[in-house]
Amino acid sequence: KINSDRLWDSLMEMAKIGATAKGGCKRLALTDLDKQGRELYIKWAEEAGCTVSVDQVGNIFCVRPGEDMSLAPVGTGSHLDTQPSGGKFDGVFGVLSGLEVVRSLNDLGIKTKHPIEISVWTNEEGSRFAPAMMGSGVVSGRFSLQEILDSRDVDGLRLGDELQRIGFAGDVPVTGRQFHAFFETHIEQGPYLEAEEKQIGVVTGGQGQRWFNATLTGRESHAGTTPMHLRKDALLASTQLIQKVEDIAKAHPPGCGTVGFVNVTPNSRNTIPGKIEMSIDLRHPLDEELSAMDKELSDFVAELAAQTEVAIELDPFWYYEPIHFDKACVEAVRNATAKLGYSHMDIIAGAGHDACYVSDFAPTGMIFTPCLDGISHNEIESTTQEECEAGCSVLLNAMLTMAEQ
Amino acid sequence: KINSDRLWDSLMEMAKIGATAKGGCKRLALTDLDKQGRELYIKWAEEAGCTVSVDQVGNIFCVRPGEDMSLAPVGTGSHLDTQPSGGKFDGVFGVLSGLEVVRSLNDLGIKTKHPIEISVWTNEEGSRFAPAMMGSGVVSGRFSLQEILDSRDVDGLRLGDELQRIGFAGDVPVTGRQFHAFFETHIEQGPYLEAEEKQIGVVTGGQGQRWFNATLTGRESHAGTTPMHLRKDALLASTQLIQKVEDIAKAHPPGCGTVGFVNVTPNSRNTIPGKIEMSIDLRHPLDEELSAMDKELSDFVAELAAQTEVAIELDPFWYYEPIHFDKACVEAVRNATAKLGYSHMDIIAGAGHDACYVSDFAPTGMIFTPCLDGISHNEIESTTQEECEAGCSVLLNAMLTMAEQ
Ligand SMILES: NC(=O)NCCC(=O)O
Ligand SMILES: NC(=O)NCCC(=O)O
Repeated sequence: KINSDRLWDSLMEMAKIGATAKGGCKRLALTDLDKQGRELYIKWAEEAGCTVSVDQVGNIFCVRPGEDMSLAPVGTGSHLDTQPSGGKFDGVFGVLSGLEVVRSLNDLGIKTKHPIEISVWTNEEGSRFAPAMMGSGVVSGRFSLQEILDSRDVDGLRLGDELQRIGFAGDVPVTGRQFHAFFETHIEQGPYLEAEEKQIGVVTGGQGQRWFNATLTGRESHAGTTPMHLRKDALLASTQLIQKVEDIAKAHPPGCGTVGFVNVTPNSRNTIPGKIEMSIDLRHPLDEELSAMDKELSDFVAELAAQTEVAIELDPFWYYEPIHFDKACVEAVRNATAKLGYSHMDIIAGAGHDACYVSDFAPTGMIFTPCLDGISHNEIESTTQEECEAGCSVLLNAMLTMAEQ
Repeated sequence: KINSDRLWDSLMEMAKIGATAKGGCKRLALTDLDKQGRELYIKWAEEAGCTVSVDQVGNIFCVRPGEDMSLAPVGTGSHLDTQPSGGKFDGVFGVLSGLEVVRSLNDLGIKTKHPIEISVWTNEEGSRFAPAMMGSGVVSGRFSLQEILDSRDVDGLRLGDELQRIGFAGDVPVTGRQFHAFFETHIEQGPYLEAEEKQIGVVTGGQGQRWFNATLTGRESHAGTTPMHLRKDALLASTQLIQKVEDIAKAHPPGCGTVGFVNVTPNSRNTIPGKIEMSIDLRHPLDEELSAMDKELSDFVAELAAQTEVAIELDPFWYYEPIHFDKACVEAVRNATAKLGYSHMDIIAGAGHDACYVSDFAPTGMIFTPCLDGISHNEIESTTQEECEAGCSVLLNAMLTMAEQ
């Protein structure tokens, strides 16, 4: 149904932009490389006959006309930005599957009742600018446009300025977007499909997330002359917090807890660290469990600050509750999978996805495909052409079903 | 005897170069600011009648002629480079005390038998380039010139290139330097003089140091989709190592153990850290104890690597044994202190100092003065004009004694 070689070739072509030594991609949101990726995508979409527009937060929308242009489009999409040491498929597979759907419909000469719309959402990764899923989050109304434009990366660069700089501060309003239905194709990024030997994951929902920034303030002093008992070592205190995050997650299976970012000041080998800035990421499919994890974390922070001479601030700057996808959309994915004869299982997304925010305002579903050893957010992230073909074929079928209703 | 106002004014003037918001200094070795500091120093030394030369590793030597120029000079000196969040006095007090000695001798019209020589040693801090005391270490023969020129900062910049860039790659050979005697004045950087209410520390020796780089390699993967039991979290493993460094130091009083530098890769909040690079600094006044600390550390690293799925490399790249200063020089400091009526105590240096390496090849002593709350390697590092005056006066007297012998 779809052209598997063409999909794979496009994936490999896009992967050249920001290619890393170990076969991955580094194409951080709103960098020059992100701009290059976006421009290549727009070129391809226009060649496939789409009308392209960009909204105020840099989201790209590519429309293939339907018979009735007064109807809301059936949408699909994901993102082009990557982690600092990301893979070739996370996000990219979703937007290129969307493009392959349009190209296939063109090949087959199929005109759909509803328009088809592909979206490339801005800064899904949340790595350079936090939190994640910013573009879809603004469109869903979870974030205000202004707060997102004003967010800053670790070097103090403002998102709105970076958007201007790379030429993607569009003028389409972020409000009022509608989808008749929306589907996102994505690699699973975890180990379950592979372990169960299934080709397709029918995603029924996504786990909840809580993101924090913690700042620990001790006192800088000399590593050779400050007696051990007179130290206010912010790094030493942070080790207890990092271990606690791990313990909390393990006490709430299948929850996750991660410290991925740590910034040490002044980061000089013979100065006792005076300040630590670090991230904390807690996740759980059940909201009650996630709340309990949150409480254990803040209780521990209070205890730790009382025990040590280090001051600790905990900023819970992002939370989204577990979400459940639309029953009809989930059913459309399951039916398409069955019809095409792929093995499948229901699954809950461990990662956040743009589809999670789209599901705030439109009937939404997701299609997962396996990835090697369940590894993602790593340059060695890997999947096969056949696995991509399966996911994209299911997408085409699910979208076609909805585009006629 | 010395001009206390002039010494203080010069300290405050030099502190403007790289001044930080909280009243400290950031003048990292071989940066543009280090160049500015060096140039100001040379201007002052030439105005005071010194002949200035620069050696192959960027050490600056300022000579005030003696009656017999065939005699080895009586030397003093320290450094102008600072920590990333350093104070105004660490090192600078030593080189400006030397200058004040020369200025005072000029005022008093005193001609010494031996020449007087002030040295400004390159990269004493060991913060931008490790290890510390590089300039004096090359002159003492502890390091080869080539290995030091080839050392690189965290951004990969080569020391030799940076020396060229700031115009301080001199042509005076690093070999063959001699001192009839050498004294270094320095703030204590620790709490003991203040606690004992003494004006002068007569430094009898310096504790030993062992510096390591540790690299922990786990596996990057997704913070939301990688089950806790499948992780290879390099940051989590590093927390145990950081805590062990603390435990080892506490088990060997008055030893010190510090992790001051940690670099996390990829340092993205939703990626499990795949690689940690960190520093370890162990110190003890007794070599047997320092060796025991070293062994406990390497044993623990082997254990930790066996217990976790994280690979650990420990590179013990710098060691120097506890040193003992020259009896006659120590006596000269003690006598000068007594003669001038300052309260004093014997003390062992907790920090490394250029004098420690100079003592390899010349009779050497050190003079310590108190600093507020024992805090150094911090922008708030503080001392008074009176304390500086006392240290500089003792220096003048100790040098004069030696310069006539
Ligand atoms: N899909 C994905 O990796 N999203 C990034 C946001 C998250 O950390 O879940
Ligand atoms: N004096 C001083 O701070 N030296 C830096 C080298 C050390 O860490 O001891």
